[in-house]
Amino acid sequence: MIISEIIAHKRDGGRHSQKEIAFLIGGFVSGDVLESEMAAWLMAAYIRGLDESETVWLTRAMVGSGSVIDLRELPGPVVDKHSTGGVGDKTTLIAGPLAAAAGVKIPKLSGKALGHTGGTLDKLAAIPGLRTSLSQDKFLAQLNKVGIAVAAQTSNMVPADKKIYALRDRTATVESIPLITSSILSKKAAGGAKNILIDVKVGTGAFMPTLERAEELARSLQSVGRSLELNVNCLITDMNQPLGRSVGNALEIKEVIDALAGNGPADLMEVSVRLAAEMILMAGLTTDLAVAREKIEAVLNSGQGQAVLEQLIESQGGDANIIRDPKRLPAAAHMRELRAERDGFVTFKNCRAIGLAAAVLSGHADCPPRLDMGAGLVVKSRHGDKVIIGQVLVDVFFDDETRLLEAETLIKQAIVITREQPDQWPLIYDNSLTTCSIKEC
Amino acid sequence: MIISEIIAHKRDGGRHSQKEIAFLIGGFVSGDVLESEMAAWLMAAYIRGLDESETVWLTRAMVGSGSVIDLRELPGPVVDKHSTGGVGDKTTLIAGPLAAAAGVKIPKLSGKALGHTGGTLDKLAAIPGLRTSLSQDKFLAQLNKVGIAVAAQTSNMVPADKKIYALRDRTATVESIPLITSSILSKKAAGGAKNILIDVKVGTGAFMPTLERAEELARSLQSVGRSLELNVNCLITDMNQPLGRSVGNALEIKEVIDALAGNGPADLMEVSVRLAAEMILMAGLTTDLAVAREKIEAVLNSGQGQAVLEQLIESQGGDANIIRDPKRLPAAAHMRELRAERDGFVTFKNCRAIGLAAAVLSGHADCPPRLDMGAGLVVKSRHGDKVIIGQVLVDVFFDDETRLLEAETLIKQAIVITREQPDQWPLIYDNSLTTCSIKEC
Repeated sequence: MIISEIIAHKRDGGRHSQKEIAFLIGGFVSGDVLESEMAAWLMAAYIRGLDESETVWLTRAMVGSGSVIDLRELPGPVVDKHSTGGVGDKTTLIAGPLAAAAGVKIPKLSGKALGHTGGTLDKLAAIPGLRTSLSQDKFLAQLNKVGIAVAAQTSNMVPADKKIYALRDRTATVESIPLITSSILSKKAAGGAKNILIDVKVGTGAFMPTLERAEELARSLQSVGRSLELNVNCLITDMNQPLGRSVGNALEIKEVIDALAGNGPADLMEVSVRLAAEMILMAGLTTDLAVAREKIEAVLNSGQGQAVLEQLIESQGGDANIIRDPKRLPAAAHMRELRAERDGFVTFKNCRAIGLAAAVLSGHADCPPRLDMGAGLVVKSRHGDKVIIGQVLVDVFFDDETRLLEAETLIKQAIVITREQPDQWPLIYDNSLTTCSIKEC
Repeated sequence: MIISEIIAHKRDGGRHSQKEIAFLIGGFVSGDVLESEMAAWLMAAYIRGLDESETVWLTRAMVGSGSVIDLRELPGPVVDKHSTGGVGDKTTLIAGPLAAAAGVKIPKLSGKALGHTGGTLDKLAAIPGLRTSLSQDKFLAQLNKVGIAVAAQTSNMVPADKKIYALRDRTATVESIPLITSSILSKKAAGGAKNILIDVKVGTGAFMPTLERAEELARSLQSVGRSLELNVNCLITDMNQPLGRSVGNALEIKEVIDALAGNGPADLMEVSVRLAAEMILMAGLTTDLAVAREKIEAVLNSGQGQAVLEQLIESQGGDANIIRDPKRLPAAAHMRELRAERDGFVTFKNCRAIGLAAAVLSGHADCPPRLDMGAGLVVKSRHGDKVIIGQVLVDVFFDDETRLLEAETLIKQAIVITREQPDQWPLIYDNSLTTCSIKEC
């Protein structure tokens, strides 16, 4: 096979054979296919699309490029959980412990922050001493004992995805449903779980800006997952404003602790409880969503969820005392309040800019990136809230004052005060694909 | 400007600003834009297209990436000539001397063989001693004295085109009308001539397979040329079978000598005389094509054209005795005749395969390429000729017998014997754009 002919085939709108895709991915990982050749193919695939079979073959070839975790020995129902990425999205660390407390095993391989979105690994790094680099034995032992382990992917898992993702970021080929599908599912398949709950974020702070695109991605994830013998369920949730109030690594860990104590913001609690309930549905512990919610609320109210988080932190070498004494978390040196410049209604216009502001404040947007763990922001009001002039809208936490101006400019782009009360978005899109699990549709 | 946003703009079918294109090309030449980024942009531009303004800006940016020859001091009318590439296309070395003998100055910067097509520089390299690396002073002095000089582009001319072309070849982005237009016209513009005659080849041995595509390219070359203040005229000619009988460097030089002695094959004579006549029309030496043809036939019959070739070879340090004694040219060690395996009609099905066979025989298709100057082939019959079993179809010249099998396989793909007489193609598409010079349309 000749690589330029494979590229030309997709360029002209053709359909690849499984062999062509295996040749392309295998060659790229080995170095026989050059970055420029893969870049041209990615652009052709972005514009011309990949059908379901091509996406399945692409995902298989990517999984096959590295090692795969074997979870077959793990006793109990296993469910993995993934988010397509958002701002202030810390649900893994709330829904995960809650579902684990209710009897689900959650082998969570997580990623770092990407662009304007946060990453669970970065958030966990705010907990003093906590390690996310776990051996496979340690990972499985912790799953058995605690019910949940959150670790970094090892370097020999899905190397094709790592190499392709870096290239997509540079070559404007990120927002492609088949390429996103194969990237997510290859990592999930290599992680070993057969049940995968995916929180598909939609809105100005998500990679999918519209409900239509989010539904398209959810359908693709479910149908490609089915072909890979994965039970994929998707929940589409809002990302037009930060989930919860806090954005920033240590600030979000603090909010996680509050949430597992039952004191989280309403939106964060609702999405987290729902995700945990969907996980126990997928685990087969019940078939009724209302019953599932009751079970999750029970482990939340009893403190069992919080206890699981504490065990997770301890098991991974972290300082579990942060749960009773959150002051032990890293904190920024300075805080500044941003206030409403007029009376009116809070309108979130660009949630992505909030995520970028947090990245700027922490130094994560620098080159090379650094992480001021305590930096970030806390939004004090939600979309549609009535505010008066002078009322605090955002608390900005920072170590380095030179970053403040850029962050404030971004926040002012993101949040404006309008005369009219703005329209609301649903928090959870329940009429979409949410009830369509793989078993049903 | 951010390169991934420029790529995304074209990916989504947008129209670039002149600034964006200048940023892209300037960045690519300086190394700030990576090969993978340019590859993604090239694929987006291939699929989405570039409009006339974008193509003009692209060409200007490419010209501006290097140095430009100034021909304003040259006395007499200047016309450059270019071919889009074919098999056995040696017309530059026939039409050039003829037009020069009739009073046109022809500053010809030429290229090496590309893929299955030959290159004038490779053909000239078959003449013992001849140099194609000329200083600008030497180039201009020879133009003044001889009327024609054929030299290699210097490395500081249009570096953007060299870098982009190598990438297009690998990334399946060659056959794009705007990208071909900018590649050809950037080199021509840097060469300094304001009148440019382009022989657009069409058929199985050309980059443009159909008349429709060839006309599209011709229109693009003319209209983009106009915006660059270049007077571009196009002649569309057949490339479904080799032009003339010989394919291969020394074999083609021999055929050039025969042609300038008035003894060339009819098709080669017709296209060469016509191209030379178009050149003296563009030079303004007459306005009537019939008169132009007469002038060219006069310098052909008087031997003045041959005398110009002799002066060109001498001036560039070559052995001009080859004109009277072609045995001084390099010759292959062996010859084998390929014969008709049945009675019927000669049908050229794939002229590209003939070009590839010649590249294989000379070692030019090897990696790294070498050049057995005497190798190649001579076709003994034309498309549609009636042949009987055992009649010689092709003389194959070779030094290295290991190349013979592959070359013969290619030739047999290219030339088949059919029961029915095949349809003919026009040699020159006179009803197309041929009479539409820039002054008229």
